[in-house]
Amino acid sequence: MEKLFVFVPVGAVAALLFAFFQARNVLGFSEGNDLMRKISGSIRQGANAYLKRQYAGVSLFFALMFVLLGVMAYAGFLTPFVPFAFITGGFFSGLSGFVGMKIATAANARTAQASSESLNRGLRVAFSAGTVMGFTVVGLGLLDLSIWFFLLKYVFYAYLAGNEALQINAISSAMLTFGMGASSMALFARVGGGIFTKAADVGADLVGKVEAGIPEDDPRNPAVIADNVGDNVGDVAGMGADLYESYVGSIVATIALAVAAGYNFGGAAVPMLMAAVGTLASIAGTFFVGCKEKTDQKTLLRALRKGTYVSSGIIILAALPVIYFSLDCASYPQRMGVYGAVLSGLLAGVLIGYFTEYYTSNTYKPTRELADSSLTGPATIIIGGISLGMFSTLLPVIIVGVSVLASFFLSGGTIGSKEGFAQGLYGVGISAVGMLSTLGITLATDAYGPVADNAGGIAEMAGLPPEVRERTDALDSLGNTTAATGKGFAIGSAALTALALIVAYLDEIKLISKDFSFNLDITNPPVLIGLFLGTMLPFLFSSMTMKAVGRAAQNIVREVRRQFKEITGLMEGTAEADYAACVDICTRSAQKEMIAPAITGIVSPIIIGLALGVNGVAGMLAGATATGFVLAVMMANAGGAWDNAKKHIEAGSHGGKGSEAHKAAVVGDTVGDPFKDTSGPSINILIKLLSMVSIVFAGLIVKFSILK
Amino acid sequence: MEKLFVFVPVGAVAALLFAFFQARNVLGFSEGNDLMRKISGSIRQGANAYLKRQYAGVSLFFALMFVLLGVMAYAGFLTPFVPFAFITGGFFSGLSGFVGMKIATAANARTAQASSESLNRGLRVAFSAGTVMGFTVVGLGLLDLSIWFFLLKYVFYAYLAGNEALQINAISSAMLTFGMGASSMALFARVGGGIFTKAADVGADLVGKVEAGIPEDDPRNPAVIADNVGDNVGDVAGMGADLYESYVGSIVATIALAVAAGYNFGGAAVPMLMAAVGTLASIAGTFFVGCKEKTDQKTLLRALRKGTYVSSGIIILAALPVIYFSLDCASYPQRMGVYGAVLSGLLAGVLIGYFTEYYTSNTYKPTRELADSSLTGPATIIIGGISLGMFSTLLPVIIVGVSVLASFFLSGGTIGSKEGFAQGLYGVGISAVGMLSTLGITLATDAYGPVADNAGGIAEMAGLPPEVRERTDALDSLGNTTAATGKGFAIGSAALTALALIVAYLDEIKLISKDFSFNLDITNPPVLIGLFLGTMLPFLFSSMTMKAVGRAAQNIVREVRRQFKEITGLMEGTAEADYAACVDICTRSAQKEMIAPAITGIVSPIIIGLALGVNGVAGMLAGATATGFVLAVMMANAGGAWDNAKKHIEAGSHGGKGSEAHKAAVVGDTVGDPFKDTSGPSINILIKLLSMVSIVFAGLIVKFSILK
Repeated sequence: MEKLFVFVPVGAVAALLFAFFQARNVLGFSEGNDLMRKISGSIRQGANAYLKRQYAGVSLFFALMFVLLGVMAYAGFLTPFVPFAFITGGFFSGLSGFVGMKIATAANARTAQASSESLNRGLRVAFSAGTVMGFTVVGLGLLDLSIWFFLLKYVFYAYLAGNEALQINAISSAMLTFGMGASSMALFARVGGGIFTKAADVGADLVGKVEAGIPEDDPRNPAVIADNVGDNVGDVAGMGADLYESYVGSIVATIALAVAAGYNFGGAAVPMLMAAVGTLASIAGTFFVGCKEKTDQKTLLRALRKGTYVSSGIIILAALPVIYFSLDCASYPQRMGVYGAVLSGLLAGVLIGYFTEYYTSNTYKPTRELADSSLTGPATIIIGGISLGMFSTLLPVIIVGVSVLASFFLSGGTIGSKEGFAQGLYGVGISAVGMLSTLGITLATDAYGPVADNAGGIAEMAGLPPEVRERTDALDSLGNTTAATGKGFAIGSAALTALALIVAYLDEIKLISKDFSFNLDITNPPVLIGLFLGTMLPFLFSSMTMKAVGRAAQNIVREVRRQFKEITGLMEGTAEADYAACVDICTRSAQKEMIAPAITGIVSPIIIGLALGVNGVAGMLAGATATGFVLAVMMANAGGAWDNAKKHIEAGSHGGKGSEAHKAAVVGDTVGDPFKDTSGPSINILIKLLSMVSIVFAGLIVKFSILK
Repeated sequence: MEKLFVFVPVGAVAALLFAFFQARNVLGFSEGNDLMRKISGSIRQGANAYLKRQYAGVSLFFALMFVLLGVMAYAGFLTPFVPFAFITGGFFSGLSGFVGMKIATAANARTAQASSESLNRGLRVAFSAGTVMGFTVVGLGLLDLSIWFFLLKYVFYAYLAGNEALQINAISSAMLTFGMGASSMALFARVGGGIFTKAADVGADLVGKVEAGIPEDDPRNPAVIADNVGDNVGDVAGMGADLYESYVGSIVATIALAVAAGYNFGGAAVPMLMAAVGTLASIAGTFFVGCKEKTDQKTLLRALRKGTYVSSGIIILAALPVIYFSLDCASYPQRMGVYGAVLSGLLAGVLIGYFTEYYTSNTYKPTRELADSSLTGPATIIIGGISLGMFSTLLPVIIVGVSVLASFFLSGGTIGSKEGFAQGLYGVGISAVGMLSTLGITLATDAYGPVADNAGGIAEMAGLPPEVRERTDALDSLGNTTAATGKGFAIGSAALTALALIVAYLDEIKLISKDFSFNLDITNPPVLIGLFLGTMLPFLFSSMTMKAVGRAAQNIVREVRRQFKEITGLMEGTAEADYAACVDICTRSAQKEMIAPAITGIVSPIIIGLALGVNGVAGMLAGATATGFVLAVMMANAGGAWDNAKKHIEAGSHGGKGSEAHKAAVVGDTVGDPFKDTSGPSINILIKLLSMVSIVFAGLIVKFSILK
């Protein structure tokens, strides 16, 4: 069984090589004419400038944290690996986002150019760019995991080799802490990127569309480049860092649960091998993506979906031998049960994605009815959208609930016995890994979206012929659907990962203080109050990120108004807008505004821990995970539905563009922007970050908390 | 100590007598001229028609439940008192709302008329009407409690007199079930009334203000009477039924906790006597309410507040001997601790009220900033309001948290020992009772609001001179502030009551099945999934109630448009609108639309219980209480802030009435209407109803649940 671990770095290398060849493939396409090259260059430049600034700011934070963690390690509250693990987690998470952004900004003009040849070529370029991102994330994740795993097992903790349980506990405990680095990086990337993209978008719309009356993506709008930059830094770099973190987090959390379940290294092997196998399956799946010319939305969607289905099918077949051979310490029914947990996770991912689409796509009833409510003005479409978002939380909660129960009981979970209980929880962890096993290709279809969106923008700005824009529009519109599905998937996996992390946290406490007496009973006041505080945190956090978008957008509004007024000939098209100024404002605003929410996420578990102790932290984590999940689904779906209700009207319903209904729908869409692209997705990371911080600072809390 | 119980019916009778004399006092004022009489008559007629229909519909539900509970009692799952207790709870809750509505509709024209004489007279009439409602609620609550307590103790369970613990357990168990009747009634009243009032309000505004361009409360608007009726059936009758239920629920839950804490009848006496003493203190407080002519908003507010402060002061003094003599079984420090719990509850109520006002009043920064965000259109004011509402949840959560911890530990709560733990929880229950002890006068200042609002409407419609309208406007504006404070108070007390009820639920399970093995650990999958489901329920419920308002408002919009088109001379003022038609539509819509959300509240705990068992139900209750509290605060404060931001602009900021900023603010206010007056307040009842239903059906769940 020990030999099987070697497949993990193999998976990592395969993913990175595949990403490399796909990148070469994308770069082999033409960037089109000079104008396209120039526009794409400006976007690239803006995105680079933003990320450079962001990484500079975040580096400072990481340096500070490194020192702080170093001091704590020196004082004996942490193992000496923690500061280093923290840094590598942050580094790889950031690198995932960086590579994704690089390829996305390289692929946008190429997608537009390829679309001028055929729809299938356009799809291929955009999707290939998506795969670069997808496989970089999983490749770097597996690489980081492998390096640490082998270093810890064969070098640092080799002296523990005689005691398997002790050794793996030490390993998982060290590895868990690089999750905190990844989460911190992801939070900065998501929040900063989310603020950037929506400030630019909202600012551009408010002045451009509403005040000046010029269409979207019009080159005369000074914020138009910033808007396109935003797609890359928010939806690509932010998303990459986010899912990197979910991916690694779910695997590490499951490894941490393996010991209590009595599985030791066999149990640790399953999530790592599942991930490696999933990577290979995802690579295979990408070869099934393609379409013919002259195809409708549905066929195009099916073309993209086929890849995911093929990958899932391969995983379903391959997971059985992987589990059978790795878990050789477990009984036959137990192995079958763990296999069942993988299936339940996979299925839950598919179902959540499906219902997300149902509630947000304008081919279904909910969004169409929402579009109808625009007829009575902005107030009714706002009420309708919030109501739709709230209602849409019902099924995802039930799906997650059934999936948790199924994976718990299938994996041999029993509530009475201690080991049986741990085995069930291990199954829950495995179901998260199962859901994320197809991440390579799922993320590819997701990252495809912003590339297609940018391509549409470039086609518009470069004045390409109408049939090209029709094709890029088809690709873009598809991107909205895959983005919605991807968001559902990101939220679902975040919830399962966070649940696994809560249990990992409690295991960590047991490691630190063997005779710690838990009282996690929900009627225990610290637990209960922790629960209340945890419930409130996602609301507080969303409030901060939404307000940040509002303030940043105001800065853009002022700048665009200034340029319209001061640059003569801008509206006539004889003078050029100062795009860089808007990019710069977005960058500075995003950098400034991301600090407070990020600090809130990092500091809250420490303060709550110091006040309420371990039991309070556990309550807080449970409350934040449940509420964060529900609120994130609500915000993502309300935002998606408003966006598509607007698109539905623009396609000709209720009077089409320029009608009163359309104006109302634009209000809905503008409210939905920070919902779906800033606050909602950031909550996913928040709930994982809270757990990660709790785990890293567990020693401190055990020692110094006021309540025990 | 036993003799002290006699003070409870004394308190009840005092409250009811005081309400009676206050009602006579109000009725002694003049109703003004013929037109005022006529308008007031129409409002009264509409409110009567609505309540008649509502009670008829609800009676059917109660009859069905009576039979169902009877069958269950016959089968041995319930004690035979349950069906009767259920009916009396519903009856008294409904009666509280009915009396409140009766006096409010009698007082509106009288307040308008009295305002034409002096501001102080107007204030006195409106406030006296409020006191009728406030003291009817507490009087009926104490009466119902007394009757059942004495019947059970001295008649039905007299044979248990030898075993105090057993007897009081049997008594509290029977009394808890009338809470479910009260909650059911309250939910129907709040949801139905909330839908009625907002459908009328939104419908009247959408067509009247926006389309036809006529001012608010213009008699040409056919929905104007329905709008005024709505204030009475929603804000008065609904609020009365709601707080009746919180009041009784908190007392009964605390009695149920007395046995486990080892206090028996002494412990049962404290909450009942606190309530009785609070009633007398509230009566005394009312005599301090009054103002001079020519007074500003702040002085007026202080005039109202003075009564509450005096009452609180008396309670602070009187609670000490009450607790000292009742709890003679407890040690001196324990008694002082329980006294501390009362103080912490009182203080928490005051603080939550204060912060509610801070976030929603346009004399403070948050609402003023919200008004500023109207300058960039409806989208930014919507984002700003949601963000404000979310942010405003921080302090109430901390206040409740600190209050729970303080009352737990002050009352001798220890986490290790079983009895110590129960004593701490008893303290939490007592803090809820402490918060609600001033209910008589708090509710009076709250119910004063809709009366003043109606008076303003009548003054407008009857064309009274400007100085009268200035006075009614001052009274009305003050009503908005007291309504906001009252809402904060209702939410805070609902959260504390719901927490006490969760513990009472678990005690009930122990009574049913002595050797039931709980596993309330938050990592136990049924608890965790229950928590997720509970977190989702307030969202689902709010979605349903908001959609209901939307649909009902559409019906009103259509009817008003029809009347404007078909009744010739309506706009010129030569023909009269068909007010009754709008009232009728609101009534029918509200009756129809309240069914689905109410059924959801009643059925969810049973379904979740049957699937996940007792542990799952406990998780669900904890999740629903925490999320319900946070969501209710968010919705109430966002709605209140939008309302006052609009008023701030109407008072002249940002271009005043008719400006673009004002139009944006109207959108915010319209979105806020169902937030603050339908969905938000209904959540308070939802969280208590979920506990109540769980308690009543506990026997069924223990026996038939799939998971144990």
